[in-house]
Amino acid sequence: MNSLAEIAEVIHRTRRFFLCGHVNPDGDSIGSVLALGLGLQRLGKDVIMASPNPVPENLFFLPAADRIITVGSSMPETEIFIMLDCSEQERLGPAMGELSKTADQIIVLDHHPFVRCAADYYYIDPAAAATGEIVYDLLELMEIYFDPEIAVCLYTAIITDTGSFQYSNTTADTHLRAARLLASGVDVPAVGISLYGERSLTHLKTLGAALNNLRMDAGGRLAWIILTREMLDEISAADEDCENLINYPRMIKGVEVALFFQEIDEELFKISFRSKGSIDVNKIAGAFGGGGHVLASGCRLSGKLSEVEETVIFMVKQALLRNVVE
Amino acid sequence: MNSLAEIAEVIHRTRRFFLCGHVNPDGDSIGSVLALGLGLQRLGKDVIMASPNPVPENLFFLPAADRIITVGSSMPETEIFIMLDCSEQERLGPAMGELSKTADQIIVLDHHPFVRCAADYYYIDPAAAATGEIVYDLLELMEIYFDPEIAVCLYTAIITDTGSFQYSNTTADTHLRAARLLASGVDVPAVGISLYGERSLTHLKTLGAALNNLRMDAGGRLAWIILTREMLDEISAADEDCENLINYPRMIKGVEVALFFQEIDEELFKISFRSKGSIDVNKIAGAFGGGGHVLASGCRLSGKLSEVEETVIFMVKQALLRNVVE
Repeated sequence: MNSLAEIAEVIHRTRRFFLCGHVNPDGDSIGSVLALGLGLQRLGKDVIMASPNPVPENLFFLPAADRIITVGSSMPETEIFIMLDCSEQERLGPAMGELSKTADQIIVLDHHPFVRCAADYYYIDPAAAATGEIVYDLLELMEIYFDPEIAVCLYTAIITDTGSFQYSNTTADTHLRAARLLASGVDVPAVGISLYGERSLTHLKTLGAALNNLRMDAGGRLAWIILTREMLDEISAADEDCENLINYPRMIKGVEVALFFQEIDEELFKISFRSKGSIDVNKIAGAFGGGGHVLASGCRLSGKLSEVEETVIFMVKQALLRNVVE
Repeated sequence: MNSLAEIAEVIHRTRRFFLCGHVNPDGDSIGSVLALGLGLQRLGKDVIMASPNPVPENLFFLPAADRIITVGSSMPETEIFIMLDCSEQERLGPAMGELSKTADQIIVLDHHPFVRCAADYYYIDPAAAATGEIVYDLLELMEIYFDPEIAVCLYTAIITDTGSFQYSNTTADTHLRAARLLASGVDVPAVGISLYGERSLTHLKTLGAALNNLRMDAGGRLAWIILTREMLDEISAADEDCENLINYPRMIKGVEVALFFQEIDEELFKISFRSKGSIDVNKIAGAFGGGGHVLASGCRLSGKLSEVEETVIFMVKQALLRNVVE
């Protein structure tokens, strides 16, 4: 791994950059690309800012968000490709992944845990709350002034990945950085409203339908919601309207495992699993051919709702039962 | 108004204190009482910590929350009564209000706007994000060490009143204080989960019922939800299950005014109004004998749901219509 000082040195002696975050971009990946991109442009560098997928609507408010490109057929004369918020080319998607190979050199800036990194230069700090914190430190080291545009991008990166300073990755240093960013001119309520404040009518209807299908078992330790094709079609709900719905059964007091059965196609169900810690849901999803992490996983199953529901609930109840016995 | 140094001086030369926040206590009022109470106990003072109403369940996790008393028939030998997060005796409720009159002197620490304050000593700073910020500064001035117990109380006060650092009252100084509190040993995710992470099953059912009665008008500028007695009784919902539900119609993109019709008694409706800024809902609620603020107000109306709903919706639509014309 390199020091940020070494990476700053490489950047200083380079002219042309291509910056890109990961697929399914979030506030940290877009915010980091924009903050570093704007910072390098202030130094007179040639910078292309990119994303494998379009900027999500709730991040349109970020300055220069409209300058992020999502297709890049060629990348003439780019010297350095900087991967942000990811360290593997697969996370760039096929098009951007291919593009990265045509650059002279690759720099990785990331905060996700990694095993090895094949970049020419990389700085990966899993203790950082967000890649935005690493970009913050890099810009500071390069003595790039935090104007309000750069500040709001870094602030958005940090607020996104810390759940508004509520996740366990939030440190005293995170708040010190936030303090300086606010002093640089961030419109705090505007960011909050853009990120979290508004939802579509369809999203709320989808939530209402899901809550009407809220079911519980195992003495209140297990809760789940169901959205069938019929229900989703009736309110014209898209996949994005179903995002984060699993947080609702999860937030019920006493619930240890929450599930969400979403019929993504006729008799094909996507099942999401969330655990609060007592149960390893990665194992359960794995038993159904899926996977993920200990606290969050998923799988897909074909069949009638009643069969699919019964089988999965049975498995989770077994795990909960074992957890009491052990 | 007094300086915090003057108030610190008065506290230093006093032995017995009675600390109390406002009715319907929140994280700022309870957190401020506890932080100051624990701090004064560290100095060897005799401190009674009180609240006009019981500590809400989501604040039980605060250290010493179980030492907050809610009835105080007498207050022998109390020298100083400190009012926190409010500046008027009415805000203490009848019992605590009476009690405050038996103290030798009253100190007020608050951040709400005020016209005049009748206390013997008072420090009121409407620019402070929370009364917890004022208590923070006072404890710091008195050189009282921030142990993890005091830190989590102050942190909870601040996070509550800033909406987890998202409201416009959040400043760079707020984050600087949070940084020091975290360094003093706050378990950040535990606070978040206690404050926001868990809901009752009944609350979610109430939300589901409300969303199934989500209605819109005025071309998407007006949204409202309805919960009748029948619906509430069916799911055994209490008043607290209806809290914050108005945020849901409010969060719909394009909505300027959100309403919540809650049938609190047979054919008696409590109507809550929220505006995003274009409409003064205080005026509308006022026309129905209610009131509040420009962005948040309420009123009560008797009658059949259809009549009440029709009348209120008509009035709001008129206001929205005028707002376009003007």
